[in-house]
Amino acid sequence: MKNLPETKLDKIVSLCKRRGFLYQGSEIYGGLSGTFDYGPLGVALKNNVKNLWWKMFVDDREDMYGVDAAILMNPKVWQASGHIGGFSDPMIECQKCKKHFQADNLEDKNKCPLCAGKLGAERRFNMMFKTSIGASEDESSVSYLRPETAGGIFVNFKNIIDSFHPKFPFGIAQIGKAFRNEIAPRDFIFRLRELEQMEIEYFIRESDWEAEFEIWRKHMEEWMDAIGIDRSHVHEIEVPAENRAHYSKRTIDFEYEFPFGQKELYGLAYRTDFDLRSHAKGSSVPLEYYDDATGERFVPHVIEPSLGVDRTILALLCDAYTEDEMDDEMRVYLKLHPRIAPVKAAVFPLLKNKEELVAKARLVYSAIKSEIGAVIFDDNGNIGKRYRRQDEIGTPYCVTIDFDTLADDTVTVRHRDTGKQERMPIGELAGFLKKVIS
Amino acid sequence: MKNLPETKLDKIVSLCKRRGFLYQGSEIYGGLSGTFDYGPLGVALKNNVKNLWWKMFVDDREDMYGVDAAILMNPKVWQASGHIGGFSDPMIECQKCKKHFQADNLEDKNKCPLCAGKLGAERRFNMMFKTSIGASEDESSVSYLRPETAGGIFVNFKNIIDSFHPKFPFGIAQIGKAFRNEIAPRDFIFRLRELEQMEIEYFIRESDWEAEFEIWRKHMEEWMDAIGIDRSHVHEIEVPAENRAHYSKRTIDFEYEFPFGQKELYGLAYRTDFDLRSHAKGSSVPLEYYDDATGERFVPHVIEPSLGVDRTILALLCDAYTEDEMDDEMRVYLKLHPRIAPVKAAVFPLLKNKEELVAKARLVYSAIKSEIGAVIFDDNGNIGKRYRRQDEIGTPYCVTIDFDTLADDTVTVRHRDTGKQERMPIGELAGFLKKVIS
Repeated sequence: MKNLPETKLDKIVSLCKRRGFLYQGSEIYGGLSGTFDYGPLGVALKNNVKNLWWKMFVDDREDMYGVDAAILMNPKVWQASGHIGGFSDPMIECQKCKKHFQADNLEDKNKCPLCAGKLGAERRFNMMFKTSIGASEDESSVSYLRPETAGGIFVNFKNIIDSFHPKFPFGIAQIGKAFRNEIAPRDFIFRLRELEQMEIEYFIRESDWEAEFEIWRKHMEEWMDAIGIDRSHVHEIEVPAENRAHYSKRTIDFEYEFPFGQKELYGLAYRTDFDLRSHAKGSSVPLEYYDDATGERFVPHVIEPSLGVDRTILALLCDAYTEDEMDDEMRVYLKLHPRIAPVKAAVFPLLKNKEELVAKARLVYSAIKSEIGAVIFDDNGNIGKRYRRQDEIGTPYCVTIDFDTLADDTVTVRHRDTGKQERMPIGELAGFLKKVIS
Repeated sequence: MKNLPETKLDKIVSLCKRRGFLYQGSEIYGGLSGTFDYGPLGVALKNNVKNLWWKMFVDDREDMYGVDAAILMNPKVWQASGHIGGFSDPMIECQKCKKHFQADNLEDKNKCPLCAGKLGAERRFNMMFKTSIGASEDESSVSYLRPETAGGIFVNFKNIIDSFHPKFPFGIAQIGKAFRNEIAPRDFIFRLRELEQMEIEYFIRESDWEAEFEIWRKHMEEWMDAIGIDRSHVHEIEVPAENRAHYSKRTIDFEYEFPFGQKELYGLAYRTDFDLRSHAKGSSVPLEYYDDATGERFVPHVIEPSLGVDRTILALLCDAYTEDEMDDEMRVYLKLHPRIAPVKAAVFPLLKNKEELVAKARLVYSAIKSEIGAVIFDDNGNIGKRYRRQDEIGTPYCVTIDFDTLADDTVTVRHRDTGKQERMPIGELAGFLKKVIS
């Protein structure tokens, strides 16, 4: 694998580490495969994505209820959902070097790709992380880290009904961590052992499923537009019946053109009433909706839009990473939508050693920071270098305070994507920025 | 335990479940001890707390770097930190019924409090949850759920230095889940097996520790004031040398008067250079700061303000829960600060069946919701009942649209704590609400 030209993914990984978006998990200890730590800019980007999703799908709606359920759940949840029996991958062990492989990834299922040793038989490997709760380690205390956030939604269906008496249809939404003991974690933050999800279970009448599915397909497209994922890189793939879960009547995978191939970014599934029926049976608690108006009592069906946070971040970074030439130099910039960019604006005094410029720049910085938050101050190095630093982290606007500013209270606003500069009165800055990030 | 009068904690637990703040984890499956699920109002309250903390201590400062590290870490992290060796509680098992007890909680260490059987010898029980990573379950793949978020900060110290070259002093902040296999989880969300923390490691010069400790003590007081914890219920307890960790030179516990006793809410510790030295030794990676200006290279010392999110929520609920008499009826309300209240305002049409009132109320609702977000619409039942429902969830203001509104565009704003009402022009509503919640 040595001496290959640096791929686009390599460049993104390198930029993420260098500039503080993402670091390998437990890096100083040699890492822990399948885990990544978000650095300061990564957290800011991720929070912007999560907050926007919560605003669009929970706060701005009157039919959505947010929950934040525990990661550790009673193991009966995963018995009823089928995860204990079925959440597994095909695995093959090399009889010589004892390494494990995801069987589907092997081109030759007889010979080890690492040591050429003989491979053993394929077997199923359950991907849930097991742990033991309480002071005794006997079977009764076995628990699992949730493999998806959906379980925490279904177990709270009755709680939401009892506390809120929601009108029908309604949904329950959750953002949270999920854990999968992947045999072969890889492709940066694409296939992780610890990941974050944004999931909705939207409860509907069976007769409405086709119309509701279509509505949620549109919502997912609106979501991608809102955060600035280029939809020409996204392909909606109808999952054929033989590849769907047995209970699902329709599933669409939203596949994104990642540098390592076209792979699943999001999923949208019509899950019938399988989940509520399974959990009602498993728990012996009826999970039904009672309609006051019609007197009907029924088990709702479910549409599930399922979004990975980390894969969203990766798609955003892949779409945003751009190389061009500016001022006769190669330049790298992240073409992130201002709405989700970790830093909205950077404020520079033209010169570091001119007290009036620095003081004025500080004033401008404080004023716009108090209005829009994610603003930074930088007086380090020449202006060209400062522009390049902001380009690399996707800051859409740089504001420079120069000698004219002292005379007429105008500043230079420089646009990231084009490099174009315009003169703007200080008083208009906050309004301008608020508009482009909203 | 039966037939005792309902305690204040019982009432809070009951309100939290009834109104959708907090539910027992995996409730329909009989629960999972030590876990709780946040319902819609609980998530909103918790997000308000977390977002305000992040704003005050990360976004509004120029010396703080946020991270979001993985929960699963290389086990060497916990070897170096001392958790594998020392993060344990004294445990006693009953030889008859096989139940386990936290030894410090037992009044009589000879006789089982449940079955009166003979108790075994006291032994140490490590509170980290263990799991196995990868496809083989041999020792080499053992990992732990992090018992505190601090570990994820220390392993990223060098990454932050390399990416950001921060000026000194600086801090690294994190909000995230931590897991502790408590022998006896109890007291609602006070002693949990799955909890959330807000932690900062603030890196300083050794010579500055006393002054910096004092600064952070003040910051913690400011924080409590900002979210509205009544500081007359908080006691700053100097932890005596014999109870401090061996490396800590000063620790303050912020103890809150919970209904079940005065217990630790927050902690503030001067941890010397113990953590960076331990991780440098454990990882063989130097963890030092190099000062460009002076040419000094040194291992920073650390001040650690450590805050539990769930305990914050519990203290807020305990402070807020109030019973009084209003209109000759007993009333329950949550006296939450408007800044963190899950719902800021509720909008009511006086009557449900008057189309003009409902349409006007809808207009007012949409207008203030687009400005301040957390607003709800309620047309269900008489006004008195609607007030009581909002009181119970801590909504500071109720806005009623009546027939006068149709004539003069004014509304009634009713204040939660006093029940007082004032008349206000619709155009002033959003500004009024923005001011009280900021």
